[in-house]
Amino acid sequence: MEFLTGITEKETLQLEELCDPRRIGTEVKTDGFVHSIRDMGEVTFVVLRERSGLIQCVFEEGVSALSPKELRESQTVRLCGMLQADERAPHGVEIRVKSGEILTSPYAPLPLPVGKWKLNTSLEAKLDNRSIALRNVRERAKFRIQEGIIRGFRDFLYSRQFTEIHTPKIGAKGAEGGSNIFKLDYFHKTAVLAQSPQFYKQMMVGVFDRVFETAPVFRAEKHNTKRHLNEYTSLDFEMGYIDSFTDIMEMETGFLKYMVRLLEKEYASELRILGITLPDVRRIPMVRFDEAKRLVSEKYGRKMKNPYDLEPEEEVLIGRYFQEEYGADFVFVTHYPSRKRPFYAMDDPEDPAYTLSFDLLFHGLEITTGGQRIHDYRMLREKIAARGMSEEGMEQYLDTFRYGIPPHGGLGIGLERLTMKLVGEDNVRETTLFPRDLSRLEP
Amino acid sequence: MEFLTGITEKETLQLEELCDPRRIGTEVKTDGFVHSIRDMGEVTFVVLRERSGLIQCVFEEGVSALSPKELRESQTVRLCGMLQADERAPHGVEIRVKSGEILTSPYAPLPLPVGKWKLNTSLEAKLDNRSIALRNVRERAKFRIQEGIIRGFRDFLYSRQFTEIHTPKIGAKGAEGGSNIFKLDYFHKTAVLAQSPQFYKQMMVGVFDRVFETAPVFRAEKHNTKRHLNEYTSLDFEMGYIDSFTDIMEMETGFLKYMVRLLEKEYASELRILGITLPDVRRIPMVRFDEAKRLVSEKYGRKMKNPYDLEPEEEVLIGRYFQEEYGADFVFVTHYPSRKRPFYAMDDPEDPAYTLSFDLLFHGLEITTGGQRIHDYRMLREKIAARGMSEEGMEQYLDTFRYGIPPHGGLGIGLERLTMKLVGEDNVRETTLFPRDLSRLEP
Repeated sequence: MEFLTGITEKETLQLEELCDPRRIGTEVKTDGFVHSIRDMGEVTFVVLRERSGLIQCVFEEGVSALSPKELRESQTVRLCGMLQADERAPHGVEIRVKSGEILTSPYAPLPLPVGKWKLNTSLEAKLDNRSIALRNVRERAKFRIQEGIIRGFRDFLYSRQFTEIHTPKIGAKGAEGGSNIFKLDYFHKTAVLAQSPQFYKQMMVGVFDRVFETAPVFRAEKHNTKRHLNEYTSLDFEMGYIDSFTDIMEMETGFLKYMVRLLEKEYASELRILGITLPDVRRIPMVRFDEAKRLVSEKYGRKMKNPYDLEPEEEVLIGRYFQEEYGADFVFVTHYPSRKRPFYAMDDPEDPAYTLSFDLLFHGLEITTGGQRIHDYRMLREKIAARGMSEEGMEQYLDTFRYGIPPHGGLGIGLERLTMKLVGEDNVRETTLFPRDLSRLEP
Repeated sequence: MEFLTGITEKETLQLEELCDPRRIGTEVKTDGFVHSIRDMGEVTFVVLRERSGLIQCVFEEGVSALSPKELRESQTVRLCGMLQADERAPHGVEIRVKSGEILTSPYAPLPLPVGKWKLNTSLEAKLDNRSIALRNVRERAKFRIQEGIIRGFRDFLYSRQFTEIHTPKIGAKGAEGGSNIFKLDYFHKTAVLAQSPQFYKQMMVGVFDRVFETAPVFRAEKHNTKRHLNEYTSLDFEMGYIDSFTDIMEMETGFLKYMVRLLEKEYASELRILGITLPDVRRIPMVRFDEAKRLVSEKYGRKMKNPYDLEPEEEVLIGRYFQEEYGADFVFVTHYPSRKRPFYAMDDPEDPAYTLSFDLLFHGLEITTGGQRIHDYRMLREKIAARGMSEEGMEQYLDTFRYGIPPHGGLGIGLERLTMKLVGEDNVRETTLFPRDLSRLEP
């Protein structure tokens, strides 16, 4: 009988291992995509694209049985040769090729010049050829940064005793109601796609106290802007026994600090490739909604149109104000008007026209919405009634409060938006692997 | 201006901190649910349920301003008192209460006896009262184990240079075709819910080489069994530059070993609560599909009905065979017949009636399906044509192969099934927070 033990010593090395100075002067094997070929006559430089970067391989005439003439872009190959230090090569090392084999070959030339440093191609063309465009080293680096964000979110919350949960995306009724819900046929019943895990995470506060989820959410919104998607990844948490809704903002600030450290430590190469300066998260200012409106209206002479809402342009100005006045990359805007927040938002006992809620703006764009929730069964039902809403389909959610639950609150972060701002893009589709919007359902 | 710094020193301590021997004899504050009350006359024992366990609080008559007579099950409270060592208490410590406050109170008695050690309630009743049933310490512990599994999956793959990806759940066409697809209305177009991230993860092998995703998948199957769900969490990975499909099984074995170590280290308390003996993952036997059928047919005298398929009963017998003969908890069954695998499965060049694929059985239940995929554009299109399938909607998927991709393969693991087997349950709904099946769309 054959057995597997999970121990496989691979002969082939990857970039990290090739950068180990102790390997200089030894014979090595590596595999990767043919990224670019530069024929200099007697010498040909072939750059391989590996999962963590580029490695230069040098073919000297007559040395290798595999001739560089046989190579072309987008083949995958396995090459063997002597590892040498060379300052001019990326990462300071190169392989002097002695032998090699072609693993696979493409059937057509690439439709985009992915070997270039900057892929100067329209967003539309990139999205139409997604699995090719992302082979560009800079394009793919954005999604490595995205990994660092979500990984930081989970690791920080694990360390703060949150439990990870998985709640259903198909349900009988949407959590927050409204018309922006996708409907589907579920065995001859009508079901909906979850627009947020809101109800479920609150229900689980009574079980695990602190919970989080990182999962897709679905919004049937007809917005067609640079910052909206109809499906995105939401980083949600909810925590019990809060003393104030400030506890939630402190937890998010703690996450941002942890995330920045993780990116510096584990994603330094991608930060360098993209030329990213990480934001300042040492201290994040906090301003009331009405105060923020007043400040930007005064400083920038902008007339307030609607006292109950923040227009995107106002968010941009608030971002600018706090950048100029305090050097801040982020700002918490608190106490949103009750009429603009969902029924479960806790009203401020000192002024029930406002809520104990907040948005976090990053360079003027909302990347988080959060706040304290109503935990009292009677108060919750009164607010549902006052809004003329029906309790139908909310029975189990309401039972959670009927049977008791601690004071709690939480938030949701849009992963693609946070990535977009962090890498300095201005369209959220740039930081979404396969965006879904009004016109795009493929690939 | 007020600033947030992410540093909050909480006065209240949680169980872990209370178990620190250096705190014995100090005054402490903690908060939690009133889990059970035992009135002994002059002394009342109140057990609080916190996020990581139970803590015993002792009220002596006349000592605390808050009388234990005011307390009842499912209130949330904050208590203050002297931390003392006591062997008879859970975790060896208890709090002698000096003062306290009631944070929230329920409006009705709990519908289930969650304070009991074992919640002897039917699965239906537990699912009908999910947010209450899970307040039982044993019930919730299963989902802490589930967290350990998914966390181990991600951490192990990060360490092996996999990149985490997020692929859309709404698409224009299902990855593997067939009738088991949920359809939805997407802005007056027909869209479908992803039954797997298969196409996307293969497309991303050309970008990141090694990728994984942990996300929901949707199957409109009309099965109503103990092991099927219509929505579940799939742990998927895909890796390039494999030398053989054995590389994929080795990677999975490596994950299982890592997972077992993580559970032992970080989830010891939950393992103890549930009385779990972790499976043996040191070496996992590997047997061909046809050989496995022959072995169990011979040993258990079971007649083979269909040479091309494994019936669930046969899987159980294969599990039993390898347990009896080799003491194995897991077994890889390899070389499934080509006609039972999807079109993208790589046929065995030595016998194209079989594929370079595998299932992993855990105590006789399939928890993983995986294998090597076809990477050659022409071979892939020929197989599509030979099956009489259409290429419509697969253009971008096929382009990935047209423009070149390395040899690769991967797998998908059902999180709820793996959890079920690990905690010793026999219905996958027991290890799903909010299961979705033919009859259940709520809560």
